[in-house]
Amino acid sequence: MSNTLGTFYKVTTFGESHGKALGLVIDGCPSGLKINKNYIYKQIKKRKTGSSNFVTQRSEKDELIFLSGVYKERTTGTPIGIIVYNTNAISKDYFNIKNYFRPGHADITYYFKYKIRDYKGGGRASARTTLSIVIAGSIAKKSLKDFFNIRTFCYLSNIHNYFLNFKKFQYNNIKNFYSPDIKHKKNIENIIINSMKRSDSVGCKLTVNISGIVPGIGTPLFSKLDSNLAKNIMDLNAVKAVEIGKGIKASKTFGSVNNDSYFKEGFLKNDCGGVIGGISTGNDIKLNVFFKPTSSIFKKQNTVNKLFKESKITIKGRHDPCVGIRAVPIIESIVSITVINSILEYKSLNFF
Amino acid sequence: MSNTLGTFYKVTTFGESHGKALGLVIDGCPSGLKINKNYIYKQIKKRKTGSSNFVTQRSEKDELIFLSGVYKERTTGTPIGIIVYNTNAISKDYFNIKNYFRPGHADITYYFKYKIRDYKGGGRASARTTLSIVIAGSIAKKSLKDFFNIRTFCYLSNIHNYFLNFKKFQYNNIKNFYSPDIKHKKNIENIIINSMKRSDSVGCKLTVNISGIVPGIGTPLFSKLDSNLAKNIMDLNAVKAVEIGKGIKASKTFGSVNNDSYFKEGFLKNDCGGVIGGISTGNDIKLNVFFKPTSSIFKKQNTVNKLFKESKITIKGRHDPCVGIRAVPIIESIVSITVINSILEYKSLNFF
Amino acid sequence: MSNTLGTFYKVTTFGESHGKALGLVIDGCPSGLKINKNYIYKQIKKRKTGSSNFVTQRSEKDELIFLSGVYKERTTGTPIGIIVYNTNAISKDYFNIKNYFRPGHADITYYFKYKIRDYKGGGRASARTTLSIVIAGSIAKKSLKDFFNIRTFCYLSNIHNYFLNFKKFQYNNIKNFYSPDIKHKKNIENIIINSMKRSDSVGCKLTVNISGIVPGIGTPLFSKLDSNLAKNIMDLNAVKAVEIGKGIKASKTFGSVNNDSYFKEGFLKNDCGGVIGGISTGNDIKLNVFFKPTSSIFKKQNTVNKLFKESKITIKGRHDPCVGIRAVPIIESIVSITVINSILEYKSLNFF
Amino acid sequence: MSNTLGTFYKVTTFGESHGKALGLVIDGCPSGLKINKNYIYKQIKKRKTGSSNFVTQRSEKDELIFLSGVYKERTTGTPIGIIVYNTNAISKDYFNIKNYFRPGHADITYYFKYKIRDYKGGGRASARTTLSIVIAGSIAKKSLKDFFNIRTFCYLSNIHNYFLNFKKFQYNNIKNFYSPDIKHKKNIENIIINSMKRSDSVGCKLTVNISGIVPGIGTPLFSKLDSNLAKNIMDLNAVKAVEIGKGIKASKTFGSVNNDSYFKEGFLKNDCGGVIGGISTGNDIKLNVFFKPTSSIFKKQNTVNKLFKESKITIKGRHDPCVGIRAVPIIESIVSITVINSILEYKSLNFF
Repeated sequence: MSNTLGTFYKVTTFGESHGKALGLVIDGCPSGLKINKNYIYKQIKKRKTGSSNFVTQRSEKDELIFLSGVYKERTTGTPIGIIVYNTNAISKDYFNIKNYFRPGHADITYYFKYKIRDYKGGGRASARTTLSIVIAGSIAKKSLKDFFNIRTFCYLSNIHNYFLNFKKFQYNNIKNFYSPDIKHKKNIENIIINSMKRSDSVGCKLTVNISGIVPGIGTPLFSKLDSNLAKNIMDLNAVKAVEIGKGIKASKTFGSVNNDSYFKEGFLKNDCGGVIGGISTGNDIKLNVFFKPTSSIFKKQNTVNKLFKESKITIKGRHDPCVGIRAVPIIESIVSITVINSILEYKSLNFF
Repeated sequence: MSNTLGTFYKVTTFGESHGKALGLVIDGCPSGLKINKNYIYKQIKKRKTGSSNFVTQRSEKDELIFLSGVYKERTTGTPIGIIVYNTNAISKDYFNIKNYFRPGHADITYYFKYKIRDYKGGGRASARTTLSIVIAGSIAKKSLKDFFNIRTFCYLSNIHNYFLNFKKFQYNNIKNFYSPDIKHKKNIENIIINSMKRSDSVGCKLTVNISGIVPGIGTPLFSKLDSNLAKNIMDLNAVKAVEIGKGIKASKTFGSVNNDSYFKEGFLKNDCGGVIGGISTGNDIKLNVFFKPTSSIFKKQNTVNKLFKESKITIKGRHDPCVGIRAVPIIESIVSITVINSILEYKSLNFF
Repeated sequence: MSNTLGTFYKVTTFGESHGKALGLVIDGCPSGLKINKNYIYKQIKKRKTGSSNFVTQRSEKDELIFLSGVYKERTTGTPIGIIVYNTNAISKDYFNIKNYFRPGHADITYYFKYKIRDYKGGGRASARTTLSIVIAGSIAKKSLKDFFNIRTFCYLSNIHNYFLNFKKFQYNNIKNFYSPDIKHKKNIENIIINSMKRSDSVGCKLTVNISGIVPGIGTPLFSKLDSNLAKNIMDLNAVKAVEIGKGIKASKTFGSVNNDSYFKEGFLKNDCGGVIGGISTGNDIKLNVFFKPTSSIFKKQNTVNKLFKESKITIKGRHDPCVGIRAVPIIESIVSITVINSILEYKSLNFF
Repeated sequence: MSNTLGTFYKVTTFGESHGKALGLVIDGCPSGLKINKNYIYKQIKKRKTGSSNFVTQRSEKDELIFLSGVYKERTTGTPIGIIVYNTNAISKDYFNIKNYFRPGHADITYYFKYKIRDYKGGGRASARTTLSIVIAGSIAKKSLKDFFNIRTFCYLSNIHNYFLNFKKFQYNNIKNFYSPDIKHKKNIENIIINSMKRSDSVGCKLTVNISGIVPGIGTPLFSKLDSNLAKNIMDLNAVKAVEIGKGIKASKTFGSVNNDSYFKEGFLKNDCGGVIGGISTGNDIKLNVFFKPTSSIFKKQNTVNKLFKESKITIKGRHDPCVGIRAVPIIESIVSITVINSILEYKSLNFF
């Protein structure tokens, strides 16, 4: 089902960037879960912030309106409908691109598909739609933590030629998710500022760590924990590659190096990234997510206009030069949605 | 649905490595399609061959038995049931591992999940299950070619430290899919032979090219052409990463470099890999698939026995030292299944 | 998926009787369809009216708020989100039943399931939730008419011991759907008034006629046109039986009487009700839907309180003594949703 | 998904009446269930027997071949593939109808849909396909009994003008499911013999009773226990109406008569048939299923030939004059499949 994620914890989203509202329906959420609005807002705020130190952002209030499925801050087991009105959609920013297809954006493929030119902020292809994912994902993330002690973390591990040093990295050091210490923060910001100065954008990599999953979650085929994670992560804007465990490095090495042996303490090495044969090992799930540079740049670019005549375009408006900072809560959300779905699947079959 | 791929062209597979038979049901295949058994056998043979020059393979006859859905070599529109009996499952190869979990294999996660120790060849987690995918995928691949002129190719592009030179690579040069010329063949074989001599295995990368897709296939969310491809590819054994277009390289560059502009001839550059915003651009779809080294190696390894006491294991039997050669028709199959599914989805909504 | 109807034209609904709002998401609606708000309001009004001549109804404004998926009154192909705020939910009517389970209502089964006592109007089990179905169904009904010339009609054919005379019945006579002529209207109203006077409610039967479906819609198994109709109709409140064609009468007769023969003009007799083997014949689809009497009656009844102590209950508030009048647009909606879904399924597989 | 029943206990069937084999895949069956082959054969035998005292039946051996998912007579949690070869398909019986559409059969609608004239026994629309349902259903039925003490019974309650006396009816009296005592057996057989003598067939009604379901199974919308039962039952050949509880009678009575009140012992009256608002009450589930007369009769009938020229047809072959006897194990199977599916759904959401 096209606009639905998941098969047990099912998240259906709707809404376009410059439409009236964004929304979502969560169907299949167990009853009795505590809904922590503050936590959701905290994650929404991370998503909104982005590189806001550097760029004037679209300053949406993003006020959550719970329409159904929650009573006295607890889920009732019925579908949870939530909407957020778009209050600050400055469509005038888009007037200058009304007649042009923006390079790198889905404007043109969207047009090929629907024969409709929705020039106002990308419509359904806009990153604004990830707000619905953050809402559903924050509920999932909090529930995973409260009920199963499963914790989901994500951080910016590479931007252009700067890499975070994994060895010394401690999760409890991640204060504002891209600056475990002042040096990292500075380095990351410098790269972003530099690309801004050149009216350009820059790609990045995020690293995900999920701890606390018991062994046995996932299926051999085709509801693998890792294939579901890859699918849902690739559903996010700008993601161009996903890797589990040593992934790409594993493809260049030998079995004797790569195989993880089980010892009486469990797996001492976790090159597989916490999943073998689609099923969790009990070790941390480890993923890398590769983002292309933001498509909207302020440099003049080649393109065609809506009559397919060649032209130049200069994009204006409010755009992050790097998606990697705002993407942190989005990735945490999407993996939480995926993990809770696999756990519900597990529960439906393992009750004897 | 766990053992089903796709939502329109739905492939349900069943069967274990050393069970009585492997099988599949294709539901949602249009009626009137020609079934070319020879073509399926050709793909099956590629899958079976593997590095058979080097290793004595499990020599299954792999005889297709069509049980339903096909009449006079044409699909009838009803579900197509196909089985292949396992005739040469030498379970005695597995007696020595009866009491041990093989490192890198799903033996132990499978056990965590089902509390059942199926020591005979990995059960449902075995690569043998990909036979069902090759059958369904070959039907899809042939139909894509015959009806839509969509062609799917895959080749081994990296093994250990050897890379194929993309620049000079011509698709019509791919004779036996891992040897566009005698030099490549030699280099690849040498790496495989070397890892065999060391009782080891080696990882690899496959590159996929899909040509002929019209623009507009896929959806913005969540039935993206690329996320569906990533999901289904990750459902295959030993895949640890998937990349579309420039993917990983894109994550390290700038928007001004990465963005593909549309000209009157179309996209002149295809760094996006043929998909923007989940929808096909009309250019070739380009994917890279990263495989870990085969888990079964003949070196002595650490593990635990079924009572979780630490032990050593030496694996015997028939095992490819590199999955990349056999994986070629498997990858071609899975991407064909994915693409035909997206086309049927497109047809259901674009008929006015 | 629990709160979703359909597999192609997918309608997900959310919202409870006395919650903040009711809503729905339509996913899989082709782009370019004209949305006729007036038509939807007309159907909503029918649903609201009910036996309003006799009873003071809950006078909701039922103002439609389109949140997404529609641009300049045309569908865009993206999910259509629509909500209706509950503005007139008089929860005080429910205070007197706060501590009691209402006989005939889902109060007690709901409690068994969710362990939650939502006493305010039945929550998700309330007939108020059919508003979402009428909205999605009206869009479907109008599209079926405009694009395929398929027309869906429904009328009250039996109430208590009064039956409408089918022989002389003409569809274009149905003015306000329960009064093809003044005599019928009088008779129906008298039965309703009588049951009201006795503080009681009364059951009824609705008859459905769908004209204009081409032959070949539906599948032999398990997406039969008639089984899908039965399922979706039984999803509505108070429906206790569904019959297609001669149905029950057919079960008491002989094959020589019941079989419909095909002549050069087509089927001259339509005892099958327009569907054979799950597939449309091209004749009108004919269904009967049997409703139990409204559960809410003003007579004193036996029940238990929330501590499961035996008690008496007298229900107050605004309740139709017969659901059959308000159910007309609801049934028309649900069958329209079902038919459009089967047509989209047909289109996905019959494009060669 | 067209050829799949259920969303948790998912049964995909394939195979045509005169194809090579019939088969099924059960996906979502918990691991560790005992598979009792004898029990399945017992149910298959009931299905096969039919009115075999009167008619020479198609004497298929119906030998079950388990291909996967079962190890040492226990389910492994992987998909269960089962096939039955068609060994006695006497296609010559169908030569005389090769060029004609049989009245009452899906021959003509099938042709409209697929543009293929499969004259051999109805193809996918044949009642032979119910064999797959009996196999999957018998596994479900036995599991329901063994694990949850849920028992499913079905009996012939009406044939032509003969009705079984419900009052004195005891379930433990049902010896061979249509003859609780010698008088019933005689009366039923006489009606069948009489219709045979007239080269005709006769309709019937089956009554279903499901005992032992705990309260709370099902959902308010749209995975209602009763709507799922109605859907799946209507998926069976020849079913033209389904009724739950008092159903049709309820539609003619008053709320004060129909409402079931809860007392401290539970519901003393069960007019609702064990389901209110889509959720089980804990009382027995009560259904009636109405079957049309067998379409194949030996009387000469009007029809058209495959060129749509008007003609006469006289059907030969082996055909039951009343489906109601063979349908007993089929109905028991389909309701068992439906109930176990709802229980797995319940388990996936109620584990806290």
